[in-house]
Amino acid sequence: MADSTERLRLSRRMVLKGTGALAAASSAAALLAACGPLADDDDDDKASNGTGAIPASAQEVAEARGLTPEDITRAVKTYVPGGGRDEFVMFASGGHGGQVLVIGVPSMRLLKVIAVYAPEPWQGYGFSDEGRKILEEGGVDGKVLTWGDTHHPGLSETNGEYDGQFLFINDKANARMAVIDLRDFETKQIVKNPHIISNHGGAFVTPNTEYITDGSQYAAPWGWEYAHPSEYKEKFHGAMTFWKFDREQGRILPDASFSVELPPYWQDLADCGKGPSDGWMFSNSFNVEMAIGGEGNPPVEIGALQLEMDYMTVINWRKAEEVVAAGKYEMIKGMPLITIKTAVEEGLLFQIPEPKSPHGIDVTPDGQFIVVCGKLDPHVTIYSFEKIQAAIEAGDFEYDDWGVPILRFEDTVEAQVELGLGPLHTQFDDQGYAYTSLFLNSAVARWKIGTAGDPESWVMVEKIPVHYNVGHLSVCEGDTVSPKGKYLISLNKWAIDRFQPVGPLHPQNFQLIDITGEQMDLLYDAPIGIGEPHYAQTISADKLQPWSVYPEVGWDPVAQAPSPHATQPGEEGVVRDGNKVTVNMTSIRSHFKPDQIFLKQGDEVTLNITNIERAQDATHGFAFPGQEIQLSIEPGETVSVTFTADRAGVYPFYCTEFCSALHLEMMGYCFVEPS
Amino acid sequence: MADSTERLRLSRRMVLKGTGALAAASSAAALLAACGPLADDDDDDKASNGTGAIPASAQEVAEARGLTPEDITRAVKTYVPGGGRDEFVMFASGGHGGQVLVIGVPSMRLLKVIAVYAPEPWQGYGFSDEGRKILEEGGVDGKVLTWGDTHHPGLSETNGEYDGQFLFINDKANARMAVIDLRDFETKQIVKNPHIISNHGGAFVTPNTEYITDGSQYAAPWGWEYAHPSEYKEKFHGAMTFWKFDREQGRILPDASFSVELPPYWQDLADCGKGPSDGWMFSNSFNVEMAIGGEGNPPVEIGALQLEMDYMTVINWRKAEEVVAAGKYEMIKGMPLITIKTAVEEGLLFQIPEPKSPHGIDVTPDGQFIVVCGKLDPHVTIYSFEKIQAAIEAGDFEYDDWGVPILRFEDTVEAQVELGLGPLHTQFDDQGYAYTSLFLNSAVARWKIGTAGDPESWVMVEKIPVHYNVGHLSVCEGDTVSPKGKYLISLNKWAIDRFQPVGPLHPQNFQLIDITGEQMDLLYDAPIGIGEPHYAQTISADKLQPWSVYPEVGWDPVAQAPSPHATQPGEEGVVRDGNKVTVNMTSIRSHFKPDQIFLKQGDEVTLNITNIERAQDATHGFAFPGQEIQLSIEPGETVSVTFTADRAGVYPFYCTEFCSALHLEMMGYCFVEPS
Repeated sequence: MADSTERLRLSRRMVLKGTGALAAASSAAALLAACGPLADDDDDDKASNGTGAIPASAQEVAEARGLTPEDITRAVKTYVPGGGRDEFVMFASGGHGGQVLVIGVPSMRLLKVIAVYAPEPWQGYGFSDEGRKILEEGGVDGKVLTWGDTHHPGLSETNGEYDGQFLFINDKANARMAVIDLRDFETKQIVKNPHIISNHGGAFVTPNTEYITDGSQYAAPWGWEYAHPSEYKEKFHGAMTFWKFDREQGRILPDASFSVELPPYWQDLADCGKGPSDGWMFSNSFNVEMAIGGEGNPPVEIGALQLEMDYMTVINWRKAEEVVAAGKYEMIKGMPLITIKTAVEEGLLFQIPEPKSPHGIDVTPDGQFIVVCGKLDPHVTIYSFEKIQAAIEAGDFEYDDWGVPILRFEDTVEAQVELGLGPLHTQFDDQGYAYTSLFLNSAVARWKIGTAGDPESWVMVEKIPVHYNVGHLSVCEGDTVSPKGKYLISLNKWAIDRFQPVGPLHPQNFQLIDITGEQMDLLYDAPIGIGEPHYAQTISADKLQPWSVYPEVGWDPVAQAPSPHATQPGEEGVVRDGNKVTVNMTSIRSHFKPDQIFLKQGDEVTLNITNIERAQDATHGFAFPGQEIQLSIEPGETVSVTFTADRAGVYPFYCTEFCSALHLEMMGYCFVEPS
Repeated sequence: MADSTERLRLSRRMVLKGTGALAAASSAAALLAACGPLADDDDDDKASNGTGAIPASAQEVAEARGLTPEDITRAVKTYVPGGGRDEFVMFASGGHGGQVLVIGVPSMRLLKVIAVYAPEPWQGYGFSDEGRKILEEGGVDGKVLTWGDTHHPGLSETNGEYDGQFLFINDKANARMAVIDLRDFETKQIVKNPHIISNHGGAFVTPNTEYITDGSQYAAPWGWEYAHPSEYKEKFHGAMTFWKFDREQGRILPDASFSVELPPYWQDLADCGKGPSDGWMFSNSFNVEMAIGGEGNPPVEIGALQLEMDYMTVINWRKAEEVVAAGKYEMIKGMPLITIKTAVEEGLLFQIPEPKSPHGIDVTPDGQFIVVCGKLDPHVTIYSFEKIQAAIEAGDFEYDDWGVPILRFEDTVEAQVELGLGPLHTQFDDQGYAYTSLFLNSAVARWKIGTAGDPESWVMVEKIPVHYNVGHLSVCEGDTVSPKGKYLISLNKWAIDRFQPVGPLHPQNFQLIDITGEQMDLLYDAPIGIGEPHYAQTISADKLQPWSVYPEVGWDPVAQAPSPHATQPGEEGVVRDGNKVTVNMTSIRSHFKPDQIFLKQGDEVTLNITNIERAQDATHGFAFPGQEIQLSIEPGETVSVTFTADRAGVYPFYCTEFCSALHLEMMGYCFVEPS
């Protein structure tokens, strides 16, 4: 700044000239365009002299910050340098936030929130015509809901392995299922289950994503029909729905989907068989007591604990598929349902006693065993698929009140392992270990998967405390045929004192645990201050190959096809047909064309906006004040929004993504003349 | 698991007995209650032998992960061990996500998303009667909006320092202002500006939070009135609104607020004076060309660049307050407005030429200087408040078309420092440095704040590249009278290639920079995959002292007072008055009381639910299927929700926060009999 004195002696005219000179030197294009990666990007890394060497500065910093030697190792295990990549990506449900969280592992950074059941204006989700249609089609008896209770994300699988193509997630509260396309990480479809009114046993996919399971949580009459509680046994039902998925269309096909009726117990978690058990699925059924509270009855949480055993429900879904194909179903609320009677006659439905109040049910990677956590039993119980098949073959059944055959516990169980209090959910690694969350202990147990016929080989190994009240856990690809191991994420429900206080509503706490060593090691606490994740799946990052821009200019991301409403540069304009006005608009740094729109009060207006950018990250937003209009238009995308110009006035619309140095000038005025 | 063989020999009866024994051993209370912190919490730290020592394992891990020595130091600088605290807390706007993000520094972990302008079901925000009322009162001419474009969070100040009590944030799109109470990190109020229809120059507070500024962005007729573009000079206006804040009530008082009319230029960022300049405020005014695009005109982003200078707008707000008190205002749209004519007559409004297309305007910590970034000038321009006062005193003005006095550039400027391309926004540290973001360079410049009368003392020091397209930046308490320095967060608009790809909509990128050393050092990339933050303020964590539970059972968090709808244990019940039904309910692990509700189709139902828990983190959710009802009821809170039982049917309501081992059983049924 040697010339500052000189500059200050300049007259106002000369200063003006100076800024003019800059404007001339920098081309308009440079000012309007955003900068890409800089060549001197890694200036700050020039001092590097190889990897691994520990500098003295690190030691000083650690001392100053009070870090222990273990902390330092953990820091080095979780740190991802700027521009580096996380090795895994976790998809976690957002619970009653209604969304899906995308988190890098091991850094635990929140890469994205995918809007699913709740509108989200940054993504423009639920605000465009296309997005509103998704919410409308997923409405509940014609009513659009703006929330959901997402529980269990399910990644699509090919031969029992995650393939990185699609993600499914259920809404427990309203018995819905959503489809997310992992090419653009956006929700494409929501379907409402016509049979059941709350779910829990979903989204779990069959090994080639033929079906997505959707098990009823709280029993109820079919659909939303009325019945009095005194009619519970007759009119309330359970069901397991199998949603048919079409990979080409990227859609659930309700017309090719069906349910299997179950007794009015409550279905909890579920899992699909794999390998030898492919074609079958397993679900926990609790509250076989059929407690529903009310005057003079025990409260549900007591009433549902009266009996010592609940049931595992076992369904041969391939057989069920054949039964539906053969027309042996009832059409209930527009979707086929196999009645219990038919299911029993066809030999596709069985039950097996389980320790009471079961939560997790998880098939081992080799498909041979089913691991059940009865949350009031300190053991996990391992069932053998081979033994289950033998017992079915033997046919020596008891039956419940609905005529469902019950296999014997001792005929089907392979082993039990005592782990601790409140076992909930199990995942697997690549070293032959299983990991079970212990809610009441606030701990995770590691135990050895044994071999068939050798009960002594199933052994508890160690426990690690977590903080606090762990629900599910996720090991990298830990529910597939080939788990990757390495990290375990403990999805803790309570944080209590683990973070800087942020008021009475605490974040949840994801804890990252290293499972590569002889002892599990707690690496990191990650607060989740948005939603309450229930379950997560963690996929190798290299399996995800999303688009960075849409394939062509004028793309409809909901249809994943060229949009009929696309506007190419030069085709912009306003078309009026009576009081119906269509505005065909383009956006590019830093201009909307047209930039003035003249309307009359009462006009029905459709804006078709095409972002003609091809540079990745060159997203434009579109905000229209006083209306429910906030769109996100990614490079190549065409989006439409329809509204009524119900109020006269002047409306400055503008780009909401800071897209260039002249972003604040990327706006236009809409003039609505009084009628 | 030595006894596994033995266990497997047990008959089914004996297994049942085993689980029964467990149930007996564990008291019901233990099963129902969630675990608190465990005594063996820190088992995993037992190997610690003091702080700072670098273990060999860290070196091995660093080698395996390809970390450079610099990476290791950065890892150690940013890692916060489990249960540790971040030193600072950043409040970042969520842009067109409409929310506020709360982030720990230096870990960059997302502690919470505070719902402000968009409903958010996890928090129950916008779903309860109380929450809906906030959105309704903040509606735009009676229309409730479910989105906003949050730009500039403003923490409340006492004597120019953050006091940790309140946070304000504007909605640019609809010219609204929101109040967040930092006792519970929840939004309490949204007010709609009756004069202006989009804003930008807010929320900036006066040094004792007397007022919150709210400057118009795009000029328009008052309110939402209609005018033709040809009437721009006559009927379009700018304004600076001063919202009066009442700390006791925790509310903006619209009746005690006022605006100062400005010419129809566009107001950009603003800042309030402090120390010697307390009582004054400064705003950037751009597009003095009054370009608004349209047929035959240059597009706005070109039209607004025709003149070489824009203006700094200078307002004596204390004088304005006196003028309003003296009744010298016009009542426009129900709120006082000081016309330009009055403002000029009273000597409270001035303009000063600035390099064109200004963005940031930032008052130095000592209150002596105002730093302006003209984003098409490679310099920052520093104005002297003392010189401004002298020039006002001298009275040798030019005037613009509206009669606003214009001070001379050369009379008021103190220095200029050449920094690079696209300077946007400036913050300050505790070492006498200023930091300015350079959008077009994708860099942050550090420069030395000089002394009055010594232009050579204002010196560019160094630049650091950031990735990419930095907008604002935040230094710890860097816009107060006593900056804390230490960290700078660069709020980058584009991420491009910095993270695992997540589709065409990329996250933003917050980069954490260490500013304690001789050279700035880039420590960490934090993806922001929700919203597009514009500005952030970063406060010392110890200044925040939020509640961990509400003060008493039956608390209304919106009123911050005991709720008239509170239900104490034993008072639960259902009251019917014609078709109006009131349900007074309590929640405690793991029960809602009453747990059965009988309604008739068409009933107007109000649920008053009190969470009678006193343990921190013992939040219960409340989901009611098929209705817009998802509540979050924190310990002590009473919340109400009113709905019409418009459909007959059976509705299982349930707790959405995993609160105990018997959480799944925390539910009830609502029976709606057909009418």
